[in-house]
Amino acid sequence: MIRSVRSQNRHFPAGTPIFAALGALAFLAACAQPGPVPDRDVQWTGETVTLEITAERGMVALDEHVGYDGFTFNQTIPSEQFIVQQGDSVRMILHNEDTVAHGLSVHAADAQTSAHVGNVPPGESRSVTFLAKYPGVFMYHCAPGGHGIMMHTKAGQHGMIVVEPADGQYGLEAELGREPDLRLYFVQHEVYRDGRDFFDGKALYVMFNGELFRYVKNPIQARPGDYVRFYYLNNGPNLTSTFHIVGGIFDYMHYQGNPQNVDIGGQSVTSGPTDSWVIEWQVPEEEGAYTLVTHAFGTQTAKGAIGILQASHDAERDAVVRSEGPRSNGELVDAQFRRVVRPFAPGSPEVDRPVHFDAGEEVIIEMVGNSYVPKTVEIPSGTSVTWVNEDVFDYMNFEQTGLHNSVVVQGPEDLATEMLGHGETDALTFTVPGDYEYICTMHPYMRGIVRVR
Amino acid sequence: MIRSVRSQNRHFPAGTPIFAALGALAFLAACAQPGPVPDRDVQWTGETVTLEITAERGMVALDEHVGYDGFTFNQTIPSEQFIVQQGDSVRMILHNEDTVAHGLSVHAADAQTSAHVGNVPPGESRSVTFLAKYPGVFMYHCAPGGHGIMMHTKAGQHGMIVVEPADGQYGLEAELGREPDLRLYFVQHEVYRDGRDFFDGKALYVMFNGELFRYVKNPIQARPGDYVRFYYLNNGPNLTSTFHIVGGIFDYMHYQGNPQNVDIGGQSVTSGPTDSWVIEWQVPEEEGAYTLVTHAFGTQTAKGAIGILQASHDAERDAVVRSEGPRSNGELVDAQFRRVVRPFAPGSPEVDRPVHFDAGEEVIIEMVGNSYVPKTVEIPSGTSVTWVNEDVFDYMNFEQTGLHNSVVVQGPEDLATEMLGHGETDALTFTVPGDYEYICTMHPYMRGIVRVR
Amino acid sequence: MIRSVRSQNRHFPAGTPIFAALGALAFLAACAQPGPVPDRDVQWTGETVTLEITAERGMVALDEHVGYDGFTFNQTIPSEQFIVQQGDSVRMILHNEDTVAHGLSVHAADAQTSAHVGNVPPGESRSVTFLAKYPGVFMYHCAPGGHGIMMHTKAGQHGMIVVEPADGQYGLEAELGREPDLRLYFVQHEVYRDGRDFFDGKALYVMFNGELFRYVKNPIQARPGDYVRFYYLNNGPNLTSTFHIVGGIFDYMHYQGNPQNVDIGGQSVTSGPTDSWVIEWQVPEEEGAYTLVTHAFGTQTAKGAIGILQASHDAERDAVVRSEGPRSNGELVDAQFRRVVRPFAPGSPEVDRPVHFDAGEEVIIEMVGNSYVPKTVEIPSGTSVTWVNEDVFDYMNFEQTGLHNSVVVQGPEDLATEMLGHGETDALTFTVPGDYEYICTMHPYMRGIVRVR
Repeated sequence: MIRSVRSQNRHFPAGTPIFAALGALAFLAACAQPGPVPDRDVQWTGETVTLEITAERGMVALDEHVGYDGFTFNQTIPSEQFIVQQGDSVRMILHNEDTVAHGLSVHAADAQTSAHVGNVPPGESRSVTFLAKYPGVFMYHCAPGGHGIMMHTKAGQHGMIVVEPADGQYGLEAELGREPDLRLYFVQHEVYRDGRDFFDGKALYVMFNGELFRYVKNPIQARPGDYVRFYYLNNGPNLTSTFHIVGGIFDYMHYQGNPQNVDIGGQSVTSGPTDSWVIEWQVPEEEGAYTLVTHAFGTQTAKGAIGILQASHDAERDAVVRSEGPRSNGELVDAQFRRVVRPFAPGSPEVDRPVHFDAGEEVIIEMVGNSYVPKTVEIPSGTSVTWVNEDVFDYMNFEQTGLHNSVVVQGPEDLATEMLGHGETDALTFTVPGDYEYICTMHPYMRGIVRVR
Repeated sequence: MIRSVRSQNRHFPAGTPIFAALGALAFLAACAQPGPVPDRDVQWTGETVTLEITAERGMVALDEHVGYDGFTFNQTIPSEQFIVQQGDSVRMILHNEDTVAHGLSVHAADAQTSAHVGNVPPGESRSVTFLAKYPGVFMYHCAPGGHGIMMHTKAGQHGMIVVEPADGQYGLEAELGREPDLRLYFVQHEVYRDGRDFFDGKALYVMFNGELFRYVKNPIQARPGDYVRFYYLNNGPNLTSTFHIVGGIFDYMHYQGNPQNVDIGGQSVTSGPTDSWVIEWQVPEEEGAYTLVTHAFGTQTAKGAIGILQASHDAERDAVVRSEGPRSNGELVDAQFRRVVRPFAPGSPEVDRPVHFDAGEEVIIEMVGNSYVPKTVEIPSGTSVTWVNEDVFDYMNFEQTGLHNSVVVQGPEDLATEMLGHGETDALTFTVPGDYEYICTMHPYMRGIVRVR
Repeated sequence: MIRSVRSQNRHFPAGTPIFAALGALAFLAACAQPGPVPDRDVQWTGETVTLEITAERGMVALDEHVGYDGFTFNQTIPSEQFIVQQGDSVRMILHNEDTVAHGLSVHAADAQTSAHVGNVPPGESRSVTFLAKYPGVFMYHCAPGGHGIMMHTKAGQHGMIVVEPADGQYGLEAELGREPDLRLYFVQHEVYRDGRDFFDGKALYVMFNGELFRYVKNPIQARPGDYVRFYYLNNGPNLTSTFHIVGGIFDYMHYQGNPQNVDIGGQSVTSGPTDSWVIEWQVPEEEGAYTLVTHAFGTQTAKGAIGILQASHDAERDAVVRSEGPRSNGELVDAQFRRVVRPFAPGSPEVDRPVHFDAGEEVIIEMVGNSYVPKTVEIPSGTSVTWVNEDVFDYMNFEQTGLHNSVVVQGPEDLATEMLGHGETDALTFTVPGDYEYICTMHPYMRGIVRVR
């Protein structure tokens, strides 16, 4: 499923941007300007790197007890981590093996991407090629267009792509004259119960690299004195994090992972969603646990974003900790988990509690974030149910829109609302007892249940 | 209504600060200090710029379907955008044409302002004059004092004032040796349904320059290779944004819009409320759509903060995109819109749903953010209703305070609570059926409804 | 209770890290690197500073009307403020005078701390010694391990420790050639009603230095022209702040309080939780009020985080404003306050409203953030109550875990649930009328009430 191929080809593909003749200018500018000047005269390395991503839907395990039935790239959340060199020609291919459109936004590209991989129909593959111009730690994520960009990213289709600098060294490497002992790639990311919580910024879980308390259960091994480089990326999609190490002060902090951006001596780095840092740090001389934590204690840390770097003199340590989540086997089922979270359909009852209405009570269901909220309602026969579309983006169609309707696909009667724009409402009256399962025809994974007694 | 006048007057107005004799010191310091040293010996340009702002209340259109009945400066949200030169003498006049006090906080001023324009009574005009000392992208907003500062800004009275640097050039201008092809002034801002959501940070809408999906509906036109400068300002008033371009890596990022603050090569810039950046970027060589987005996908983007920069070789493009919202004509009415939002009074029923109480249920209404929550309650005759003041700032009076009461102004009976400080409660019993409309006498625009059956 | 002792001892304590031989390397690196290089060859000053902290629980006053029954260090929230010199040997002692474990995380330490003060049993004292390597403005907070780190910090056990730079001067000091007239130490911090609000980021109060509107009631006195240095630290534990002065533009902004990190000319600084800044600013020449404010107006400012710096030519001003909260006398009682907030147990009825259930309604109580939500329920006899554990960290035991149960400690019947891991549920049926008070045996301060009619 995952193929990363580096091919030798001295001729840079046609149609990609060339950044010529700016070198001398940049040098002159460097003398006159107050800060750094980027080296924009990037030389093509002669390498063409091919990165392949397959879009699907399916269950992943957030830990042994919690299943997440989301959208995936390469069967993981976060998606596979890629590393290229500054100056590489990068070809990214998106294979859409799903039944709805997907797409790609690649933050490592300073190049037109939407026209090539902005909306890949079901069953098709598309690619984009760009020169890796700037070094740094970048997010990539699903982007089928419009409203779908936000919904698919939220559902789990996001990952990290690192562009290693061609010449520039990060701070501690320049200072110590050697490469890091450990390279730790960290993606912080959130999981939401439904679209309302997504709109309100109320994450259900927050974690590093796809698993709740992943590095509490399996601490990262290191030795005192080790030179550690973090590639830290906050994929959000909502919250602002402050990454910190208990017992550590960062020696160098490079905003966006660009070695020319330098801060030093910090207890924390702040990252809004899609912000990133390369952090350089040397493990102190004493053995023990150094806790890795995002310091927003209630909204993030207590929900899963804490881990341990364990330092001991004889540690057997991995030189690299990668950021992709544990791979799902594609065969996980609800019964394996204590609870299952579904961003767009009813999950376990404790996660999406059915809401009970008595006769005469007003029943209003929001369409929001490609979900019905509440996802399951229980009503007496004869009750009228009103849907209101609280999604705001109501242009275009299918994955690109926030237009919604409610169409019964299984139940005692066939019922359907109008297709609703933002702020519009429509009502249905349920007279025949039974369970009604309904969907939005724009987003057929968006499901709700009406139980009529 | 809007007059921006530049008058020649070589004598700098008396009473304004003079920044003399620091030049030499600054030069010496520059050699010893690790980072940039501001040029604090600002020379007066000889220009006096007069900027006028009129405070009112009224309806603006967030798009064709959504009306917002807020507080305005110069009949728009965001307010009119101003540009001055570093070293200008800036005179800002506030005309208060409303029936409650207004005021000004101007972040471009490193000078006493509150004493001059901190509280302008209804029907009066006041002004402040200051030297534009620092270059940058600044917020200005209503500030009648105390609690009112937050409430009026939330209601819509905020805008952008840019101070162009006297000498310093931004990064790409220095590098390319020419001025930008496009200057894009972007204010990101939020709208809240009521004071509870305002306190909880749950925005109903978030947008660029006053209109939902403004630049989706009308993409900004550009040409490949264009040099684009963003003046990006997050007016909040609550959320932290990360601005990003799909297909773009920012060449230069100048925090606060000061050319001496330089970061390079970023996928995003993070801005808390009132933070700003000048962002320098060159449109890649390929035609197509480049999506402009704040990357907090649920709390912000999906609620309206996304737009498109469309690049084509033969584009007819505007050199400037200004940040003020579409001007209201002062005659917009509820009936034109699918829904109307009122921060301090009941809006459309789908926005502020009336809450129904049965006999025996406890009815509690919060006073919070200068609003009653819920704004409309329906109760059986004989029910006691308790108000609790959850606004915390209970010093001073009128626009400056968070003291509140509930006084019936229309209805079957005259009823009134005590004036309540923070955490205080008072109850009224409604025995005569009918509709009761009530207000807070400190903030007469703050309205609620009790419907007694 | 508070003892800060500086003792002369030229031999640096054994076992602490030595940062030798890096000086020359750093110098060489400085020439090759784009930004600053930290001086990592820190010389021990010969001073050993002893800082003592006593952990307790008890009531503090947030203002005259609001009591907060939290966890304290040295009987204040924020805790006592400490200042040491770069190169000092710092010995921090934690005295645990409480009946549950406490601990320490000290962000000024680039050294192993968890092994020494990570979990201090009730009645014991432990210490850690470290070299103050980096200058800056740092947070310290309770850290008994795991889940307890977040819970105890939220409850109030946090403070500021400043490491003054050995040689480096902050911007304005270098420029003006003199020390500040005012040193203002500001901790911004939040208070939460219960664990659900803590998880959702919905602070009840936000303030500077322990008191609501502290510097509105008692403005900080200054003179025009005064050179002011802010040591600004956001202890969170959740929200991102943007600190601003009405009428002020910051001359220098040093991220993390490190003089080598320099931004200039800003209207604001953004701080995620545990971020800090040293801000250098000169009061303008005109008398009047300069309002100090975090610019997140709804989520923070209106809840208490606003103050005043009052400038007048003949002001009698304090050279230092310290960041610790007003000291409690250890004898505050509920009856003194209009409302009392308890993060882990029922507070005043208006703060934690009892929730009433009718026969047949489903009663679900969340265990979240070491609290029961709702904290008090009223049910008919014969009702079954279900607890669900929404705390996610369910490893380890006692203060280190988010495992919870519900055990009746006072009431008509002895009842107890199982000990629940994340996402697990258990139910109890209440058949005998009366009031049941129950606790979690892992966290005995965590209390709830079931009232059976």
